[in-house]
Amino acid sequence: MEKETGRVEAFSDGVFAIAITLLILEIRVPEIAEEAGNGRLGAALLHLWPSFLAFVFSFFVILVMWINHHEFMRWVRAVDYPFLFSNGLVLLMVTFVPFPTAVVARHLGTGAANAAVAFYCGTFVLVSVAYQALFLSVAYRRRLVRAEVPDEAIARVRRAYRMGPVVYGLSTLLALWSATLGLLLCASLWILWTRLCYHARDENAPA
Amino acid sequence: MEKETGRVEAFSDGVFAIAITLLILEIRVPEIAEEAGNGRLGAALLHLWPSFLAFVFSFFVILVMWINHHEFMRWVRAVDYPFLFSNGLVLLMVTFVPFPTAVVARHLGTGAANAAVAFYCGTFVLVSVAYQALFLSVAYRRRLVRAEVPDEAIARVRRAYRMGPVVYGLSTLLALWSATLGLLLCASLWILWTRLCYHARDENAPA
Amino acid sequence: MEKETGRVEAFSDGVFAIAITLLILEIRVPEIAEEAGNGRLGAALLHLWPSFLAFVFSFFVILVMWINHHEFMRWVRAVDYPFLFSNGLVLLMVTFVPFPTAVVARHLGTGAANAAVAFYCGTFVLVSVAYQALFLSVAYRRRLVRAEVPDEAIARVRRAYRMGPVVYGLSTLLALWSATLGLLLCASLWILWTRLCYHARDENAPA
Amino acid sequence: MEKETGRVEAFSDGVFAIAITLLILEIRVPEIAEEAGNGRLGAALLHLWPSFLAFVFSFFVILVMWINHHEFMRWVRAVDYPFLFSNGLVLLMVTFVPFPTAVVARHLGTGAANAAVAFYCGTFVLVSVAYQALFLSVAYRRRLVRAEVPDEAIARVRRAYRMGPVVYGLSTLLALWSATLGLLLCASLWILWTRLCYHARDENAPA
Repeated sequence: MEKETGRVEAFSDGVFAIAITLLILEIRVPEIAEEAGNGRLGAALLHLWPSFLAFVFSFFVILVMWINHHEFMRWVRAVDYPFLFSNGLVLLMVTFVPFPTAVVARHLGTGAANAAVAFYCGTFVLVSVAYQALFLSVAYRRRLVRAEVPDEAIARVRRAYRMGPVVYGLSTLLALWSATLGLLLCASLWILWTRLCYHARDENAPA
Repeated sequence: MEKETGRVEAFSDGVFAIAITLLILEIRVPEIAEEAGNGRLGAALLHLWPSFLAFVFSFFVILVMWINHHEFMRWVRAVDYPFLFSNGLVLLMVTFVPFPTAVVARHLGTGAANAAVAFYCGTFVLVSVAYQALFLSVAYRRRLVRAEVPDEAIARVRRAYRMGPVVYGLSTLLALWSATLGLLLCASLWILWTRLCYHARDENAPA
Repeated sequence: MEKETGRVEAFSDGVFAIAITLLILEIRVPEIAEEAGNGRLGAALLHLWPSFLAFVFSFFVILVMWINHHEFMRWVRAVDYPFLFSNGLVLLMVTFVPFPTAVVARHLGTGAANAAVAFYCGTFVLVSVAYQALFLSVAYRRRLVRAEVPDEAIARVRRAYRMGPVVYGLSTLLALWSATLGLLLCASLWILWTRLCYHARDENAPA
Repeated sequence: MEKETGRVEAFSDGVFAIAITLLILEIRVPEIAEEAGNGRLGAALLHLWPSFLAFVFSFFVILVMWINHHEFMRWVRAVDYPFLFSNGLVLLMVTFVPFPTAVVARHLGTGAANAAVAFYCGTFVLVSVAYQALFLSVAYRRRLVRAEVPDEAIARVRRAYRMGPVVYGLSTLLALWSATLGLLLCASLWILWTRLCYHARDENAPA
């Protein structure tokens, strides 16, 4: 059993590691004329700021998703099909993240910034639904939860995860009005998930 | 020996994880004019539906292939060259899947949809032949099968695997007539493989 | 120590797994007109035969390189810097393979086929030099060889590895005259390496 | 605890392995006319020398970063959030390296070489800041350092890491004046890091 959760973790880690590394492929080398000089290349690189911003942003988003995934896996005592498929759903969304990242990188600062950021935030509505499914596949009636995890810890994570789709939905709507505010609300949520982990860790720290 | 199957598993997991993550690279950011607005980008994203469909479809196909691979590896007690090469054949086909996926993504909804879906389904004829080879490299005269796996379990998987090339061949032919039906038959098969695993698991569950 | 060789193996496995999976990215979806029909797409896919050939060829080349690497790692009892850097040299060449593969895929069947195949075969001159360096970093005066590996096994692998650069050099020259024959000589060598492993395995099989 | 550092290592190894392998994707197959001959392709391949140089250079840079990371992880006895995030910062910079590499590959030998190399060297200012953060998250007041690591070893690594941002800053300035010298200073630093590891290893070798 131990070995089985280990294998799911290894596969999931692989997907997280690859998705987080693929983000860089979306930043294209600026194509400037052969005879253009240093100033021209410097300006072209500065002009890529939305790409750099989107890259750093999504990198930390996937990193937080990975940390959350791992903290959560520490609660899991066994593997079954509902778990494997809801974990697959989470990984599906993880591998999808580089695409909305590229859309934001390409369209931030243009007239289509609202649509781009709304698409980005909307992706995380689905991400949080996937995490919800993963949570339920493990914690519903404590199906696969280790005996030593206290009920209160589960209840707190349940409340936090339940908020996810709602708040990401709000950030999606907000993005239609202001791309910057939508992105900031999105970011603030990731800080919240991290704090959530922190608590889960404190409560479940021994071993 | 244990360590050896572990290493083949780790390498295979790596290939599965990378192939499943590379799928997203096939979805290109829509190139719209700088001055185009939010509506234009939204429409362009919606227009990518065949890419999203192909992405999700192939993601679950590779996920099911991975689950099958792992369930099967639980039967294996040792590693030899026929096994390593038939496993290599399976991995060859796994890494190939992103290409027919991209072909379907690009051509679904165009006049070449039949050829695209037939190429996609035809790929799985080869995938199922590769799994057949892997099965035989392990189960032929129980060459590398663990002692505790019952003969009936092997016989059932043999019957199911034998069906593979035939039914994928049919879905390939069907796709030439109707792209949608071909794709649906292809999908229904993946549900079947999953159910097959389920049984294999029940029968071989202890530890 | 055991743990250290494990970590080098894990990193190396990752690089092999990624390089082998990246090969598919070199096959581009044929761009045909929207209104073109199934026949046109089918023809375009058939026209990709050099890409498919190069993909399958390089896939098995990297697979054999991986198998060789693993067989060889079974001899290693410890890790030091000369070993880490010569292993790095092998991995450098492994990650490079997708590029000459793409060159062959693009130019096989054109007037530049000889140069393309010579470049491909020439890459394996460097690959075999890197494997030679790895071999020496481990086997020179049995620096890092496990005590149970017999001297004769080392001597046989030494002879085989010494042939590598020479025969790949010949296949490079041959490719300049006939692309097909150069590629075939290159392929036959991979069969030889596999057979070599086989022996190494027999001699070192117990545990 | 042991298992946790193992998981961070596995994830980090994955990111290093992928970043080092993605470097090859930046080398594009030369597009020459179908009817062009072998000489033309040969010339086009030679013309790619800046890409090959940048590829080999960045490969060894990431390899040395990986070796450093691993040597350093041997000192770590536990994992907490400051450590996870500073490790994330290191990985962010690792995944970023393929982009400046591609910029150098594209612009070395053109009029924008200075800006390209300065951007490349400037990246390593940030890389060394990230390694500094990782170092502090572990070694500040010996927070997460294993008991057996002597204070002098920590002090020596501290001095070396402190030099990093300064010397990379100098190489960035130097690159603005001479691209070649900037790149050489950058390279010489990696040799220094390697030697540093060597010492750390000697002092902390037992087990």
